[in-house]
Amino acid sequence: MATGTTPAACIADFCLIPMGIGSPSVTPYIAEVQKLLEQCEGITFTMHSFGTTVEGSWDAVTKAIGRAHESMHENGVPRVHSSIRIGTRTDKPQTAQDKVDSVRKYLAESEGKSESSAK
Amino acid sequence: MATGTTPAACIADFCLIPMGIGSPSVTPYIAEVQKLLEQCEGITFTMHSFGTTVEGSWDAVTKAIGRAHESMHENGVPRVHSSIRIGTRTDKPQTAQDKVDSVRKYLAESEGKSESSAK
Amino acid sequence: MATGTTPAACIADFCLIPMGIGSPSVTPYIAEVQKLLEQCEGITFTMHSFGTTVEGSWDAVTKAIGRAHESMHENGVPRVHSSIRIGTRTDKPQTAQDKVDSVRKYLAESEGKSESSAK
Amino acid sequence: MATGTTPAACIADFCLIPMGIGSPSVTPYIAEVQKLLEQCEGITFTMHSFGTTVEGSWDAVTKAIGRAHESMHENGVPRVHSSIRIGTRTDKPQTAQDKVDSVRKYLAESEGKSESSAK
Repeated sequence: MATGTTPAACIADFCLIPMGIGSPSVTPYIAEVQKLLEQCEGITFTMHSFGTTVEGSWDAVTKAIGRAHESMHENGVPRVHSSIRIGTRTDKPQTAQDKVDSVRKYLAESEGKSESSAK
Repeated sequence: MATGTTPAACIADFCLIPMGIGSPSVTPYIAEVQKLLEQCEGITFTMHSFGTTVEGSWDAVTKAIGRAHESMHENGVPRVHSSIRIGTRTDKPQTAQDKVDSVRKYLAESEGKSESSAK
Repeated sequence: MATGTTPAACIADFCLIPMGIGSPSVTPYIAEVQKLLEQCEGITFTMHSFGTTVEGSWDAVTKAIGRAHESMHENGVPRVHSSIRIGTRTDKPQTAQDKVDSVRKYLAESEGKSESSAK
Repeated sequence: MATGTTPAACIADFCLIPMGIGSPSVTPYIAEVQKLLEQCEGITFTMHSFGTTVEGSWDAVTKAIGRAHESMHENGVPRVHSSIRIGTRTDKPQTAQDKVDSVRKYLAESEGKSESSAK
């Protein structure tokens, strides 16, 4: 427990919510976050319908999300909430795409077996 | 506050984690959840790299996630944790796809303006 | 995977955010949720600084959170977002209080050992 | 959007899950995290039944959670997942305790009014 380091790699998924803005629509804010993420070094990211998945070192990923909060504040948003899932693993390297591919491959093989056994 | 009803429509995004299984890989479990969701009535869903987005009534969506927990237990998983984001709105109907489209459209228009102004 | 049931018991922790209300303060909304939860049957709950922990059957707990969304909409909030953690386990019954007690007991015993070994 | 800074203050609530450990019980791991947090500078924290609330600068708080992941890996946990809620605001300073107090005060005043009006 003496170490002061953070993980060299992580995958995070965050959903950022501007609060106190008087409009239920958040599209312009989320769009600005996407632009900001493009400027952040050391990360790759993909937007989906309920968040954005970011990959990189722990420090780069959490800094990028923090910059997103700060930039919203600079644009006049008084309060910002984020819900973040973040995962790290040491048993093997894995990208976000690997995770999806693994489940799809498993499902495809599983369906193949079902069809065979159904004959 | 007298009402006992739940929202007629919602969009949820959940990430389900089997615990106590002795392996860091969760692919077979997530694949089974995808198969289970296909059997759940009243919902549509899409898997992404850090979760699954589900749409339907509040009751149908939360029941589907609960069935996923229960089926994991039936398959021998002693403990299951889910992280869920769930959103409801009354100002307009909106699908998960609408949300992504709205941000992409905003970004496309925004880039168009930037290019024009750069000339 | 044929079952259609949901877990008989769960512990959930949710943080509910009213959107589109024009004020960064959410106190009145959270207070109303606490009052609503008191009316929900089959659950117990405790508020903390970043959410509310609810215990009961899966159906009772998720229904209570859904009622909180619906009541906010009835009070004029156009959009509501919740971040939920939910856990189920079959190896032993466990209350939210049990979880905290277990860690505190472990820490107390661990500190006792450290002091002994330091002599 | 040119800034590269992160918020000077935030409140986060995280729930950390060790994966691939073969036991549904996580008490020893959570206890170790509490000990680690005591060594982290620039933060204050409180454990509750479904997570730990941490206050400090964005960088100090996210670094502390990252160190918790890293220390779990050093102790042999192959995969770690965290669910994090994190909030920042610029309209006023606010501690985690302030948040709870605000809702409790509102409820107390609200009940006082109800009793008066019930007479």
